Amino acid sequence: MKIVIVGGVAGGATAAARIRRLDEQAEIIVFERSGYVSYANCGLPYYIGGVIEDPEDLTLQTPESFFSRFRVVMKVRHEVIAIHPDEKKVTVRNLENGSEFEESYDKLLLSPGAKPTQPRLPGVGLEKLFTLRTVEDTFRIKDYIQRNQPKSAVLAGGGFIGLELAENLRESGMDVTIVQRPRQLMTPFDADMAAFIHGEMRKRGVRLILGHTVEGFEEKDGGMDVLLKDEAPLHADMVVLSIGVTPDTGLARDAGLKLGIKGSILVNDRMETSAQDIYAVGDAVQVKHAVSGQDALISLAGPANKQGRIAADNICGGDSRYVGSLGSSVIKIFDLTAAVTGLNERNAKAAGIETDQVVLSPMSHAGYYPGGRLMTMKVLFEKGTYRLLGGQIIGYEGVDKRIDVLAAAIHGGLKATELKELDLAYAPPYSSAKDPVNMAGFMIDNIAKGNLKQFHPRDVAKLPRDGSVTLLDVRTPEEYENGHIDGFANIPVDALRERLGEIPDKKPVYVMCQSGLRSYIACRILSGYGFACRNLSGGFRFYSAVMHDRRLTETAAPCGMEH
Amino acid sequence: MKIVIVGGVAGGATAAARIRRLDEQAEIIVFERSGYVSYANCGLPYYIGGVIEDPEDLTLQTPESFFSRFRVVMKVRHEVIAIHPDEKKVTVRNLENGSEFEESYDKLLLSPGAKPTQPRLPGVGLEKLFTLRTVEDTFRIKDYIQRNQPKSAVLAGGGFIGLELAENLRESGMDVTIVQRPRQLMTPFDADMAAFIHGEMRKRGVRLILGHTVEGFEEKDGGMDVLLKDEAPLHADMVVLSIGVTPDTGLARDAGLKLGIKGSILVNDRMETSAQDIYAVGDAVQVKHAVSGQDALISLAGPANKQGRIAADNICGGDSRYVGSLGSSVIKIFDLTAAVTGLNERNAKAAGIETDQVVLSPMSHAGYYPGGRLMTMKVLFEKGTYRLLGGQIIGYEGVDKRIDVLAAAIHGGLKATELKELDLAYAPPYSSAKDPVNMAGFMIDNIAKGNLKQFHPRDVAKLPRDGSVTLLDVRTPEEYENGHIDGFANIPVDALRERLGEIPDKKPVYVMCQSGLRSYIACRILSGYGFACRNLSGGFRFYSAVMHDRRLTETAAPCGMEH
Repeated sequence: MKIVIVGGVAGGATAAARIRRLDEQAEIIVFERSGYVSYANCGLPYYIGGVIEDPEDLTLQTPESFFSRFRVVMKVRHEVIAIHPDEKKVTVRNLENGSEFEESYDKLLLSPGAKPTQPRLPGVGLEKLFTLRTVEDTFRIKDYIQRNQPKSAVLAGGGFIGLELAENLRESGMDVTIVQRPRQLMTPFDADMAAFIHGEMRKRGVRLILGHTVEGFEEKDGGMDVLLKDEAPLHADMVVLSIGVTPDTGLARDAGLKLGIKGSILVNDRMETSAQDIYAVGDAVQVKHAVSGQDALISLAGPANKQGRIAADNICGGDSRYVGSLGSSVIKIFDLTAAVTGLNERNAKAAGIETDQVVLSPMSHAGYYPGGRLMTMKVLFEKGTYRLLGGQIIGYEGVDKRIDVLAAAIHGGLKATELKELDLAYAPPYSSAKDPVNMAGFMIDNIAKGNLKQFHPRDVAKLPRDGSVTLLDVRTPEEYENGHIDGFANIPVDALRERLGEIPDKKPVYVMCQSGLRSYIACRILSGYGFACRNLSGGFRFYSAVMHDRRLTETAAPCGMEH
Repeated sequence: MKIVIVGGVAGGATAAARIRRLDEQAEIIVFERSGYVSYANCGLPYYIGGVIEDPEDLTLQTPESFFSRFRVVMKVRHEVIAIHPDEKKVTVRNLENGSEFEESYDKLLLSPGAKPTQPRLPGVGLEKLFTLRTVEDTFRIKDYIQRNQPKSAVLAGGGFIGLELAENLRESGMDVTIVQRPRQLMTPFDADMAAFIHGEMRKRGVRLILGHTVEGFEEKDGGMDVLLKDEAPLHADMVVLSIGVTPDTGLARDAGLKLGIKGSILVNDRMETSAQDIYAVGDAVQVKHAVSGQDALISLAGPANKQGRIAADNICGGDSRYVGSLGSSVIKIFDLTAAVTGLNERNAKAAGIETDQVVLSPMSHAGYYPGGRLMTMKVLFEKGTYRLLGGQIIGYEGVDKRIDVLAAAIHGGLKATELKELDLAYAPPYSSAKDPVNMAGFMIDNIAKGNLKQFHPRDVAKLPRDGSVTLLDVRTPEEYENGHIDGFANIPVDALRERLGEIPDKKPVYVMCQSGLRSYIACRILSGYGFACRNLSGGFRFYSAVMHDRRLTETAAPCGMEH
């Protein structure tokens, strides 16, 4: 059996090694357009920032090591330029000398990945306008920085690569600005949670110009101007385009393979394309979102590797199935960790799922053991059914742990109320006896049992201030003095029973505290005296972060660029 | 409704607060024998070691704070000395003045906890022989250390408390010896995994005297002698008994409540005892192990807190159920983290479950990102059905994460083969594209599909050395020179195809490498040429750790005490 693989990174490399392990006799040829195989895509920004020092660390394997261990022929700088499904052949161009040749296959695996989205804007293609996807891109940026010592950079686009690069350039001492049309970085997160990401970026001196449209690029004064709609241009010594990636599927399209959303390759759960004996995996394929069941594009290394293994099994006569993706991901943003799994509010709405949510601020580990820090955790579930939909967590230590527990819980089909039952490992340096995931479960259980009714930051402005409802802040007088929401009166929770007379009878009470815990207790007390209560989800801590972010985003005008 | 609660820590305190939140009108009285409520049981060793500096940090709540927030009357230094189920009364002794009184209840909740197991040995009760369970115990030990500056301690027993105390005393500069009859510390782990715990303890200068029986204690030369069977005594400035805990259920027994294993209180999944309107929770009750379905005693804070909440729900007319415990736990041992969930080999065997297992040594995060370290991971599953039974992990960063993912997977009913499908969050600082949990799943999937057959460290000595089988070490010559198993010949995996002629035809091949990955690849190559192969589970790294530990345990004679 002869297997040809297009693309030697992640999915392609995994499949090649797996096919060999399943079939010692197979002939396996991999064509990789770039000069490197099996490279550490996710490590590239850290090489630019010097966190990863040795460029050899970026390549997990070489064509030589792959051949000696797996007898896989890895041809780098070879681009497959056409597929001929009927003849079971591909046309290959040797990028070193321009020669072309045909290669036959019994099975073909496409792992072409995705390419940086290049907007059709004036100036795209200029020398000081970079993208970051391959090892070559990385060396180009690193080389430019070393030669020219740029003092400032504008990054157009704030997703994973944009943020990781921003951190690495900033840590190298550069002035860094992120500009983009969406008003929110990191769209896997809901806008409210993104406030914490924005906050960390600003705290570290990264300038955020959100909600502004880039219209082009121009060389100017030895650097680059980034042209904005209705605003003065941004100027910097270098610019990186990081507005996202697009499935690299021209080859599949030209061969007549069926395509899915955004030009992705359509595959079934065996990673088979519409063409006989052609498989596809990785960033280029359309997958099912495991929660919504909807078609999705998920450009992440974990799914690509899993799919490569599955395609290999099936190529070798097995029957392995891809169960879909949760889109679980995590990013380090300076000291912060931000992680997400499953659906966010936006995705759920798009999928027609009515959501409810809890927001909490638990400690990473027992408060009495040194070093614990707060995280902000949002858990989404379907209204009524309590199906667990997704989670978003931002904080420090232990964020990645809780998101993976949520991902496993979703995979296991747990209801959101069942999170309270998870028997997680506790010792003071690692967690609390009631783990943050359990706490979320307790809160959702309280909603299910009717013990907790909530209102949300978006509801606050709409609350009547005409005396028809009572607005109550149950924090301490000191906390209240340090900042509170207009219209909310202060009665500390521990004084509530004595001061019940101050709360007008028979009117609904909207209660808030710092994180939502004391106000929940206050709601339970008031319920005991016949009041209808609602609790501010996430508390003042969450509300004020969201509002503060909104103000800063609105006032961050691109002009001026003062630092 | 009047609720009396016996015991104001963990389960009792949680229940009291929850009952109040569900019923503002209930009368709630808690009797606590010690002088403290709601204290941080798991933090006590760290106060002794000075990691937690402020003694006030040890108490999460006081009777005053509990009253002002929850209107719960917490009576400390009050011991319930009798229950009268027929009259729905308890007899209480005020430990301050010795007076006794009766208190009626509508519902009674028992949360007496467990007490340090006190062996019936000569010398138990001596002044310099301590136990550690309560805040008072903690102050007594801390006070003794501050006054007497002891230079050495013997800890009799090496479970959670013993190890945490050993670390804290050692970090304070003391000579520390742990002595016990079992040949293994930390029985939640299998003996092979415990080797890594022993290794860390020894590396940090804690002397381990395992497999030796303590027969008594004597004051001697201003310190204590620990008398051993058939050996010279151990001498130290202080001794701590830490051989485990026993459910504190004399009260329940005397009241005629049905008891379970080891004198624990029998409860159903609503936390109801055999007596009407009496509930029990925490370390004192018998629970169902969620994997084996067998009766178990699990003295951990997480289950106690969950049970307290469930009992409160049911006391207030709800219907909440305890789903059983996985025994998930984690411990910091100097820099090491050791964590476990579900069944280990010993428990599974006792439950009549036939197990198989994988052992792997994955990196905590991507190898190319700085700071990653190896962990040792053992995942157990049922032979044939691939039911996921449990996991044990020892290492550094990320150990607690993977054990919690395994716990969630067990809770979700995932098969061990499904671990390969978990969509976990990856970025270089946090994980690898193939997370350790996925890797375990891949290996188990390989076993299920017949691609991987294993042999284990315990099989090595039994392998025939008569030429009837081939014993093959596929590491590099350098690794082989640095240490190998007698009888294993060296052919590096990358040279295997060229040197196939050196391997005798038609004889089974037992293959090993450092961690088990290269030898798996070698097995797949050899299979392709018709050889029947078996792979050494865990590789030389695991094998040599287990053997090294066995040698040290056997040669660590108590006499001499040289340092």
